[in-house]
Amino acid sequence: MTTLKDLSSMALVRQASHLLLLDQVRLPKEEIWLSIESVADMINAIQGLHVRGAPLIGVAASLSLAQEALQHGVGDNFFLRAKELREARPTAVNLMNCVDRLVKVARQKRDVDAVVCEADAIFYEDVRLCEALANHGASCIQDGDHILTHCNTGGLATVGVGTALGVIQAAHKQGKRIHVYVDETRPLLQGARLTAFELGKLGVPYSLICDNMAGALMQQRRIQKVFVGADRIALNGDFANKVGTYALAVLAHFHKIDFYVVAPHTTLDLACTNGYGVPIEERSPGEVRGVQIGNRYLDWSPEDCPVYNPAFDVTPESLVTAWILDGGIVARGAGFTNSVEFKKQAGASGS
Amino acid sequence: MTTLKDLSSMALVRQASHLLLLDQVRLPKEEIWLSIESVADMINAIQGLHVRGAPLIGVAASLSLAQEALQHGVGDNFFLRAKELREARPTAVNLMNCVDRLVKVARQKRDVDAVVCEADAIFYEDVRLCEALANHGASCIQDGDHILTHCNTGGLATVGVGTALGVIQAAHKQGKRIHVYVDETRPLLQGARLTAFELGKLGVPYSLICDNMAGALMQQRRIQKVFVGADRIALNGDFANKVGTYALAVLAHFHKIDFYVVAPHTTLDLACTNGYGVPIEERSPGEVRGVQIGNRYLDWSPEDCPVYNPAFDVTPESLVTAWILDGGIVARGAGFTNSVEFKKQAGASGS
Repeated sequence: MTTLKDLSSMALVRQASHLLLLDQVRLPKEEIWLSIESVADMINAIQGLHVRGAPLIGVAASLSLAQEALQHGVGDNFFLRAKELREARPTAVNLMNCVDRLVKVARQKRDVDAVVCEADAIFYEDVRLCEALANHGASCIQDGDHILTHCNTGGLATVGVGTALGVIQAAHKQGKRIHVYVDETRPLLQGARLTAFELGKLGVPYSLICDNMAGALMQQRRIQKVFVGADRIALNGDFANKVGTYALAVLAHFHKIDFYVVAPHTTLDLACTNGYGVPIEERSPGEVRGVQIGNRYLDWSPEDCPVYNPAFDVTPESLVTAWILDGGIVARGAGFTNSVEFKKQAGASGS
Repeated sequence: MTTLKDLSSMALVRQASHLLLLDQVRLPKEEIWLSIESVADMINAIQGLHVRGAPLIGVAASLSLAQEALQHGVGDNFFLRAKELREARPTAVNLMNCVDRLVKVARQKRDVDAVVCEADAIFYEDVRLCEALANHGASCIQDGDHILTHCNTGGLATVGVGTALGVIQAAHKQGKRIHVYVDETRPLLQGARLTAFELGKLGVPYSLICDNMAGALMQQRRIQKVFVGADRIALNGDFANKVGTYALAVLAHFHKIDFYVVAPHTTLDLACTNGYGVPIEERSPGEVRGVQIGNRYLDWSPEDCPVYNPAFDVTPESLVTAWILDGGIVARGAGFTNSVEFKKQAGASGS
């Protein structure tokens, strides 16, 4: 029987063939690892946001599907599980792309080893993609820059150094004196909980702010650049990301502040010609009526008060200064579609 | 000895000479009334946000100072207490304006009755000012409008029907079918706790959203108008209001959505030529690291993480469609300075 290689990242570990995920809803107060025994466990972990970050979700889903193949073979059930997993969250495209890769290999080769091998390749690819993003992106950051970021796009969102936060980390490691403003990112507070946690561990100077304070900081000229990740990029450069990203892009545009999207080519959706095609997940009202951290819940709104809670929004390409991809940096106006196709090939062949 | 008239509003009551404030940090889960026995009690209530809303703070401070006059006369101590009270919060100008009015009467007349009478007049004025704002402002709302509002500007922020929320309420009472999107207003959640509570009681259809969702709603053309209050308006029309207001004004401008400021003339600061002169209060990091509702506290950020927490921001007049004042509506471009001077006289003489 195939044995599984040990793998390790900030929020995902595979050890002695056991897949473990750091429970991100409990961070930073508790560091608890969840054991993923089945695809059903993985779907629960995705939908409950115990695992999050578009790239990490893709990698974790792949490893879980490889585990399924190893346990039960590559038969009809494998393809059923793959389909269920693919639909666990609608907005991020990495999940779909990764599942599709494994399904394709499984269809072609009907071989467990080939599926396991492809899943491992996805893990290593993500590490290398993050490295490439960080190296390209750090060149956009100057000594003394004050940078705004949204949500969490670091080692907790990928299995490498991250996307937008990987870029920031790389600039810091290069000795550039930067300060990061971290949006708390309501309702699930990925900025306040996860990005603040990562920047603290990395020793990068930062200040936590509420989402509605970013505008005033820009007005005061206290932010030079904005770096965000992406959950799905359409062919024209429009992209979906954590709700609040669009408002930041408008604010940056109004203040003539550079606005960068950082994402691996695996985030590109070649089937999506523009942002209107991206389905936006709406989540439960309870997330907005209060806050749940692990098993602690505090609500502050009138009981059963009506809520609108979209998890993502779509930012049009017209508000983006440049896309930092693993294949290189694509400036706006350079013709996103062609460049991206090119970069995608470059990224894919380089990985 | 002078006896004090009974007075009553949603969040302030004076009964048998006792001044009581509804504790707004515990709403909507608990309705607890705090007894205000001294100016020191009032300062604590202001700084602890148990009483809030620029107009309500002004009225409550006046009644507390009248109580001080009644208990201890209009001597040196009265003026010392008045000075301390005036400095309890730096951004809202109503507090200062109201205290200054009582101090002026006390200096001129050295008479307790005159001070008590002036404080009562301030209470009744606020009720009438709100009525005038609501009547003027409701004409700006059309049947079918979807409206965004920020923070709380209703019966809990004044002793009348409110400012921005008073306008919304008036339109609803006129039978216009409206829907209100309520920004939760981090960090202190005045929208989620107080505005949602008031709209629920009034039966106005609403949806609670996180602050960072307003941009996406505007992009989807789901918001036609924005109504906000003000803590201080400068002579050129720039105004300070709850943090997050500026970002909403930029977003409304970008989406060509009407943006209205609703405030009584008592919010005007004639000594302030533009918004740069308004001092912005910075509050404790704990407010951003988590949330405190009454005696329940839940924090979710890394311990002692650095925070930037301005309570207000300043919106330039260039982003305002019109100022709804008690004297009437001043459209941008109509020459704010002159109009305001005029409206101020009109408002003052009418009250």
